[in-house]
Amino acid sequence: MRIALAQLNYHIGNFEGNTEKMIRAIEEARLQGADMICFGELALCGYPPRDFLEFDDFIRLAQDALMQLAEAAKEVAVVVGCPAVNPVPEGKDLYNTAYVLAEGKVIHQARKALLPTYDIFDEYRYFEPAKEFQVFTFKGKRIALTICEDIWNIGNENPLYTVCPMDEMIHQQPDFMINISASPFAYDHAEKRVEIVEKNAIRYNLPVFYVNHVGAQTELIFDGGSLVAAPDGTVVCEMSYFKEELRVFELDSVLEGSAKQVQEKQKFPLIHEALLTGIRDYFNKLGFEKAVLGLSGGIDSAVTAVLAAQALGSRNVRMVLMPSQYSSRHSVDDAKELAINLGVDYDIIPIEQAYRAIESTMDPIFGDLPFNLTEENIQARCRGIILMAISNKFGNILLNTSNKSEAAVGYGTLYGDMAGGLSVIGDLYKTEVWELARYLNRAEEIIPEHTIIKPPSAELRPDQKDADSLPPYKDLDEILFQYIEREQGPKEIIRQGFDEKLVNRILRLVNINEFKRHQTAPVLRVSSKAFGMGRRMPIVAKYLC
Amino acid sequence: MRIALAQLNYHIGNFEGNTEKMIRAIEEARLQGADMICFGELALCGYPPRDFLEFDDFIRLAQDALMQLAEAAKEVAVVVGCPAVNPVPEGKDLYNTAYVLAEGKVIHQARKALLPTYDIFDEYRYFEPAKEFQVFTFKGKRIALTICEDIWNIGNENPLYTVCPMDEMIHQQPDFMINISASPFAYDHAEKRVEIVEKNAIRYNLPVFYVNHVGAQTELIFDGGSLVAAPDGTVVCEMSYFKEELRVFELDSVLEGSAKQVQEKQKFPLIHEALLTGIRDYFNKLGFEKAVLGLSGGIDSAVTAVLAAQALGSRNVRMVLMPSQYSSRHSVDDAKELAINLGVDYDIIPIEQAYRAIESTMDPIFGDLPFNLTEENIQARCRGIILMAISNKFGNILLNTSNKSEAAVGYGTLYGDMAGGLSVIGDLYKTEVWELARYLNRAEEIIPEHTIIKPPSAELRPDQKDADSLPPYKDLDEILFQYIEREQGPKEIIRQGFDEKLVNRILRLVNINEFKRHQTAPVLRVSSKAFGMGRRMPIVAKYLC
Repeated sequence: MRIALAQLNYHIGNFEGNTEKMIRAIEEARLQGADMICFGELALCGYPPRDFLEFDDFIRLAQDALMQLAEAAKEVAVVVGCPAVNPVPEGKDLYNTAYVLAEGKVIHQARKALLPTYDIFDEYRYFEPAKEFQVFTFKGKRIALTICEDIWNIGNENPLYTVCPMDEMIHQQPDFMINISASPFAYDHAEKRVEIVEKNAIRYNLPVFYVNHVGAQTELIFDGGSLVAAPDGTVVCEMSYFKEELRVFELDSVLEGSAKQVQEKQKFPLIHEALLTGIRDYFNKLGFEKAVLGLSGGIDSAVTAVLAAQALGSRNVRMVLMPSQYSSRHSVDDAKELAINLGVDYDIIPIEQAYRAIESTMDPIFGDLPFNLTEENIQARCRGIILMAISNKFGNILLNTSNKSEAAVGYGTLYGDMAGGLSVIGDLYKTEVWELARYLNRAEEIIPEHTIIKPPSAELRPDQKDADSLPPYKDLDEILFQYIEREQGPKEIIRQGFDEKLVNRILRLVNINEFKRHQTAPVLRVSSKAFGMGRRMPIVAKYLC
Repeated sequence: MRIALAQLNYHIGNFEGNTEKMIRAIEEARLQGADMICFGELALCGYPPRDFLEFDDFIRLAQDALMQLAEAAKEVAVVVGCPAVNPVPEGKDLYNTAYVLAEGKVIHQARKALLPTYDIFDEYRYFEPAKEFQVFTFKGKRIALTICEDIWNIGNENPLYTVCPMDEMIHQQPDFMINISASPFAYDHAEKRVEIVEKNAIRYNLPVFYVNHVGAQTELIFDGGSLVAAPDGTVVCEMSYFKEELRVFELDSVLEGSAKQVQEKQKFPLIHEALLTGIRDYFNKLGFEKAVLGLSGGIDSAVTAVLAAQALGSRNVRMVLMPSQYSSRHSVDDAKELAINLGVDYDIIPIEQAYRAIESTMDPIFGDLPFNLTEENIQARCRGIILMAISNKFGNILLNTSNKSEAAVGYGTLYGDMAGGLSVIGDLYKTEVWELARYLNRAEEIIPEHTIIKPPSAELRPDQKDADSLPPYKDLDEILFQYIEREQGPKEIIRQGFDEKLVNRILRLVNINEFKRHQTAPVLRVSSKAFGMGRRMPIVAKYLC
């Protein structure tokens, strides 16, 4: 038997587009002699469909698309994810279902049992968990079909769940396993995914065919890396990252196993590809081509600019230098040099006139009150207005250039430098931004060396440095990582040897700035805990602050 | 036996404040001769604590506060909600628990079984559902203690759930029921709450003591309305709305029943009180006193201004008129008249100078391109900068004045009129804003009649009217209500008799403007489906657009 895995880039709610793409893949699989093709979890409607799942109309369209796909499932059987109406009134209205289509009709349905409801996942919001598990037979083979999380509780070792679907199905003596997934990228996740597939193969002594999505859906990036493992756990194939791909596997060859074929998993190369995918799909799927961003001469906007140019093409990126009287000479030079290195057009639009006009507008109210954060914010907001004006006039999406350290402690101006349609590097701490910059410069100096080595500054008042307001980024980022990714409390972090006052100050800053993060653009998620849908915090609260 | 219900205003994460408040209530109950006092669901940590629940430190602090409360539970027993660690590794880490404290220690724990995971609720994200139910005995009485949603599946009639805790406990022959809740306000919800308590009393032929929270937690507003019902379903008492209150009830009197005592539940009086509570608590709990808002002369800012002045006091509200060359004479007059009616200081800050400066700043780029939406947005953003400058300089929180109709179809400028720390009327459709205005004017004309009757206009270009871009609000709002609150798809809405082209156009506008709503302030929730945490939509999607 020949089994095709198709890791495709779906578009949420685009039933026509998704179906067409799958029909082309079925045809391709047929030409390659496949007996069966597997697509991802909820592939027909895209993942995650979120509250669209609450609309009967949406479910009907998904089911119509499924029927259309069934028509195409003639010579090649199809395994595909699609939401299904729960036929009984008890429980949630839907099942997260894997359909098997053959000879023009549905021959089997497998329902998901383990519904991730943590971090970015909300599956129990919509779906009833399956309680029964049944292998199906196709061309004389018995197949155990599961969906994503269903294979992540091997032998009930994952304390989150009390069910292990494969432990039940193994008694039905399947010949192999198929798992259809929608498993989003985090820089440390691909490793875990390989491990879990290996462990399943070994525990059940079966070949495993695991298929994932690729492409980005707003903040979530799917990296592909679909897997085939032999019964001894050897990974026979790990498919590409971040690329659509269709591969056909001969079951007998997989049973024999072969050398382990996995890809290198290095943090910054993966993050780099992930962010390019994130930018590209945000634009493509919204129907935009062009970006605009402000270039300050600093590291954050430089890294964002390189990523934008690489993702969208230099000619589709507009860069704007907006110096003020506080901008240093080198900032403008560094920014220009970068634009030239990238072959990107840039405009220089000084903010002084706008800033002075606002200042004089406020004069009757502010009188002799001293220059403070207010005036710094006015500068940042003048830049925001200029960038948004270009965005509105020419149809460019404004890319936000904030990093995760700033977002965490609120070192940014709402409606100013926090503006934008998409936050590109908002899930990278400042120290990671520097590392990514070095990686981007690995072959040649794209980002001027001076941009990388100079002390960071917002340049909103004379001789300002980030270090005036913030602890060294190395310390800041380590403490933030413990609090955000590792969810350690102050006592645990202090126990690790960090200064008590510093820890308390930083955690307080994180919590009191929740109101700012509430109003920011979606952040491309590359870590295990990004700001956004996966981290849900009260605004009005008094914890650690 | 005498049972006290204490409906209090908690503050998320403020363990010290919450505990002190409860200890005072225990003392008050003791003075009134109570044997037992009941507080709300998760009252010790405040509701909803959201992802703070994932921090061991947060749970430890809650448990410490619980022990402190136990110390105070000597003469009066205490029923209180607090998160509890799940003692076994299987399942989620926590239980949503109701503790019974007596004689200085924990004498019983009841765990929540039905975990709402829909709309604004995420309980299965954190909590393991209870599977066993046990009444407890206190002073010779057998008491069935449940938490909120646990009584909302009477006789398994609610298809969401398959468990009914009271159906199991009734076999243990309880003498009465206690339910501790955290049930947020929606203008049609209090009615349902009374009904469910009545139905429980009747089905189990028992008195029911039901206690709720009051006060707002960011967007969620808790309205109180705690209830006591006799075994025949008669509501013996419905406590105040939106006010902290402690009432002591004699069990024997409740058993006898008495005349039904419920309050009037009229939509706009309730919404009015809810919004005042929402504003007040947002400020109080964040430690702010003063608000600023822009007054355009239109209905939205007028209604917001009245609510702000009533909630915070006239002297704590700063109003800013920001006319442009497109502002009509009457707008400025109407705005002034309102400010005078409210006894609120106002500033007039014309935006023309700032606008011209931005225009001239953009001139080298925009050249001869015609005036369009870009320039309209620049005006709105100049106003945003001015308001935020005042906010920053004087520590006033900027109140957002957008309504739900605008937010739905994207008729607003990001970082302009969509700016602000809190959206006051963002869950009211335009037609509801008018109704609320009439209600606010019921005793005297606070909002100038002209503001109410004139055709709405953004006044961003000559002779602009909302009606140029949008259908009549009556039609718009009815279609939006069907789509947003009732989650009807286009086919269902058209079937109701609405024009097909109009429906498709409006639904498309709602969906393509998700990116704007993603970046807005928290919206005070007064309906069953507000924009914000209870409505989770993909940004990058292609459904109905």
